[in-house]
Amino acid sequence: MAKKETKLSILFAGAEIIRKKGFYNTGLMEILKTAGVPKGSFYFYFDSKEDFGAELVDFFTDYILQNMEAHFTDEGFSPLERMKRFFEERRIVMEEENFKGGCAIGNLTQETGDLSESLGGKLNLALRKMSGKFKECLEEAQSMNEIPQSIDSDSISNFILNSWEGAMLRVKVEHSSEPLLQFEELLFNKILK
Amino acid sequence: MAKKETKLSILFAGAEIIRKKGFYNTGLMEILKTAGVPKGSFYFYFDSKEDFGAELVDFFTDYILQNMEAHFTDEGFSPLERMKRFFEERRIVMEEENFKGGCAIGNLTQETGDLSESLGGKLNLALRKMSGKFKECLEEAQSMNEIPQSIDSDSISNFILNSWEGAMLRVKVEHSSEPLLQFEELLFNKILK
Repeated sequence: MAKKETKLSILFAGAEIIRKKGFYNTGLMEILKTAGVPKGSFYFYFDSKEDFGAELVDFFTDYILQNMEAHFTDEGFSPLERMKRFFEERRIVMEEENFKGGCAIGNLTQETGDLSESLGGKLNLALRKMSGKFKECLEEAQSMNEIPQSIDSDSISNFILNSWEGAMLRVKVEHSSEPLLQFEELLFNKILK
Repeated sequence: MAKKETKLSILFAGAEIIRKKGFYNTGLMEILKTAGVPKGSFYFYFDSKEDFGAELVDFFTDYILQNMEAHFTDEGFSPLERMKRFFEERRIVMEEENFKGGCAIGNLTQETGDLSESLGGKLNLALRKMSGKFKECLEEAQSMNEIPQSIDSDSISNFILNSWEGAMLRVKVEHSSEPLLQFEELLFNKILK
């Protein structure tokens, strides 16, 4: 494999395992074995596990932002419908995955956010970008009079992101979509009214 | 030290370290060293790290439920004021701890909730009990007409808990109380109106 290709296969394998098992709970050997890359070659591609973690954060951030972007620019639906469809899709993914794994950005924030300054900084930016996508969508909804002008899009977009992350967390032990359904119900029928 | 005392000192040391560093990221040796207990005696007190984790979940659950109980039965304040004071106190603790650590139950749920069936089950019960405390407080607020009768105390109490956990998570990388303040503001000025 070419160097870039090998690096990507380590990242893909790591993303899948770490999203399910956690960052500190996953050994590099397991990732390399899954990626089919010889032991010992890890440090050829990454300076440290933390450096690998930083690239993983970029990987997950790109994924979720692209997913949000695809939904939030879908002109076949109104801004509010786009947001509803995004949360619905993520909920269905969570159901399909048997309520395991959840949001990789949320998981890494919980595990590494206040332990590693470099990962914490990157995760903070990732969450701000996600919140920014909600904000744009809320402002578009306001411009189309779908939600009240009085709603503070900045503060509510952060609240939406954090509450959704909290609901995703709860789902892991409730083994049901109920926390996400309660979140969607309250968001669209109360908070954005 | 007597057997029970030694066991407690391992739990106290483990609670402090694991709340800050995480479950999988903390080695038993570090806990035993902090507790001043000889290496190798861990398995005299606990069957496994998971068994130790289960006792830690009980430890944290008792702590937070007692804290909630103390606030929610404080007759010097109305039910809604009690809830406000609870969230305010937890926010101030988070500020004093420099936005590190957070809610041990939330952290353990994120880390172990979908990996360990026994810990996940205990954490699920802990979160249901916490949500139950919010529910009782909301129902008392309803009985005193502090909040609308139309509020579904069951669903809102779960939403409150999950959203608060999500805000606590965000605080870890924002290094500010802003996510908690936004949560409190929206809860008391919009959701419970």
